Amino acid sequence: MTVIPNLNIVPFVSVDHMMKLVLKVGIDTFLRELADVVEEDFRRWQSFDKTPRIASHSTEGVIELMPTSDGTLYGFKYVNGHPKNMKEGRQTVTAFGVLSDVGNGYPLLLTEMTILTALRTAATSAVAAKYLARQNARSMAIIGNGAQSEFQARAFKAILGIDTLRLFDIDRSASEKCARNLAGQGFAIKICDSAEEAVEGADIVTTVTADKQYATILTDNMVGPGIHINAVGGDCPGKTELHRDILLRSDIFVEYPPQTRIEGEIQQLPPDYPVTELWRVITGEQQGRANDRQITLFDSVGFATEDFSALRYVRSKLPSTGLYTELDLLADPDEPRDLFGMLLRCEAALV
Amino acid sequence: MTVIPNLNIVPFVSVDHMMKLVLKVGIDTFLRELADVVEEDFRRWQSFDKTPRIASHSTEGVIELMPTSDGTLYGFKYVNGHPKNMKEGRQTVTAFGVLSDVGNGYPLLLTEMTILTALRTAATSAVAAKYLARQNARSMAIIGNGAQSEFQARAFKAILGIDTLRLFDIDRSASEKCARNLAGQGFAIKICDSAEEAVEGADIVTTVTADKQYATILTDNMVGPGIHINAVGGDCPGKTELHRDILLRSDIFVEYPPQTRIEGEIQQLPPDYPVTELWRVITGEQQGRANDRQITLFDSVGFATEDFSALRYVRSKLPSTGLYTELDLLADPDEPRDLFGMLLRCEAALV
Repeated sequence: MTVIPNLNIVPFVSVDHMMKLVLKVGIDTFLRELADVVEEDFRRWQSFDKTPRIASHSTEGVIELMPTSDGTLYGFKYVNGHPKNMKEGRQTVTAFGVLSDVGNGYPLLLTEMTILTALRTAATSAVAAKYLARQNARSMAIIGNGAQSEFQARAFKAILGIDTLRLFDIDRSASEKCARNLAGQGFAIKICDSAEEAVEGADIVTTVTADKQYATILTDNMVGPGIHINAVGGDCPGKTELHRDILLRSDIFVEYPPQTRIEGEIQQLPPDYPVTELWRVITGEQQGRANDRQITLFDSVGFATEDFSALRYVRSKLPSTGLYTELDLLADPDEPRDLFGMLLRCEAALV
Repeated sequence: MTVIPNLNIVPFVSVDHMMKLVLKVGIDTFLRELADVVEEDFRRWQSFDKTPRIASHSTEGVIELMPTSDGTLYGFKYVNGHPKNMKEGRQTVTAFGVLSDVGNGYPLLLTEMTILTALRTAATSAVAAKYLARQNARSMAIIGNGAQSEFQARAFKAILGIDTLRLFDIDRSASEKCARNLAGQGFAIKICDSAEEAVEGADIVTTVTADKQYATILTDNMVGPGIHINAVGGDCPGKTELHRDILLRSDIFVEYPPQTRIEGEIQQLPPDYPVTELWRVITGEQQGRANDRQITLFDSVGFATEDFSALRYVRSKLPSTGLYTELDLLADPDEPRDLFGMLLRCEAALV
């Protein structure tokens, strides 16, 4: 007997199911496997239909749609960025996403992506650092200890073996929250009183602050030779974290130049300033870190292919975990041309 | 006691709930009220942030995102168009949409939009015809009797009083389906053997075929004086329904010229060919129909503001009908910066 699939049903991963999925797989395994998928998709960069995100800016923040396709699957993420939300008890960034079949346009997955974005951002940072940080890197400064910080720490531990953290946030309670959440997970953690103190002796510096403005989290004198800077927080026009002089001393690696030149740290530089695309480093076409004194900078803004990787990774986990529900999202009349008849039959059934 | 809203919850209108909502409100009332909201939003056209849809084309079809915002609310629709789907028992067009709060970026509504798109397309056609068809119009030819046809008929009856239908489809069973579905709803219906026969004596001609190709559903000799043509089916590059000569004899009205010039019938004309924006007719800034011999053409492709109108209309109906469920779509930790802690607490609760 052939099982006829319910064409109208779309698997939905709620926030609750996403948390249970991550925990069932294991945070470290989830991050490692997700990093593998992110890396795999960077490796086949040229098979993706790439377009800068479509942003709708307002005085309070931004709402963005980030679509991409590899010709077989299509994915997009809805994501907002509203710095003021935190004061109202809301997330600065929330997101959800959809993966679809290019062949018939039907959605295959709808999922929360607030947690998933935190995981994919951290996994992507770790993939970049694998190619750009010094091989013997063990310590990381994290400047900005908000919602993304622990995910960065866990990804860098799972994928690079980072075991020493130096935390700084202008709000010390954020650092304390971060340290508390990471306790007992194999890190030596120091809460620092300044960004200067945090970067002292760190092999990697991750900046992940949330202000929507030009900020200078790092100044030039704070950056010694051999450091890898993982700049995560500056990700929209008018929002940067690094002093321009640091950029000029670094070798800069980016996801997708047309987007990064608008949204990344390099919006401070001329539009033709040389940068290296991360995917070319991953494929071996261009060099990543050349020596132990070089300053490398991953100017990360988050790109649609990373969300695509996350969507297809989550989808791959659904059959084995069952951690989803079925959503009646698509009208599916018995006869496709008979949409109105479906309405009439619904009416007849209600009487 | 203050009720604390669940910030993570997004109201979701499934296909089943949408059908029940339409039936509870009543199809005619739904179409009339929706047409009023569509018209209201056309009237304040200049307050919308407009951008052409973002299309991802493949050999089989297209997946599109259609976002817009009025500065207070943000809406987008996901819609596919895959002509071959019908043969596989799938809808050619399926859709879902989201309405969000611009102030904090949080979604306020997720809804099926396959049925809703059929309703908003029909309502928009009727709004245009209200301004462009002859006042005494009573009969309409519908060429292409697929999923959209009955919705067009019902909207033109509810809003303009059209009570005579002349149906034609290259597949006669489609016309029979359409006639059957509209039986007992106050129409005199004739199934015709050709498009030529269908347009004979019709005051309005609606073309709503589905082929993704340059087609010529209407030729010049078929179009007599005074007719209003409601061209719904031609809505993407390479897909048109009318012979070019008809366009040259008509006064052409469109939703959003930058999009229509790419997707509409006027893709057959030079890029500077004069057209009138519908919103300018609705506000009274420009003339609609000038006399009873003029041929008017609404070259409809469907625009994001119409979906926005549909989304906000559906949202307004939720409190009174309760026809929705609550979706756990947004991560909502007690402390916004503590996303990772939410994961840890979920883990603790599972043990």
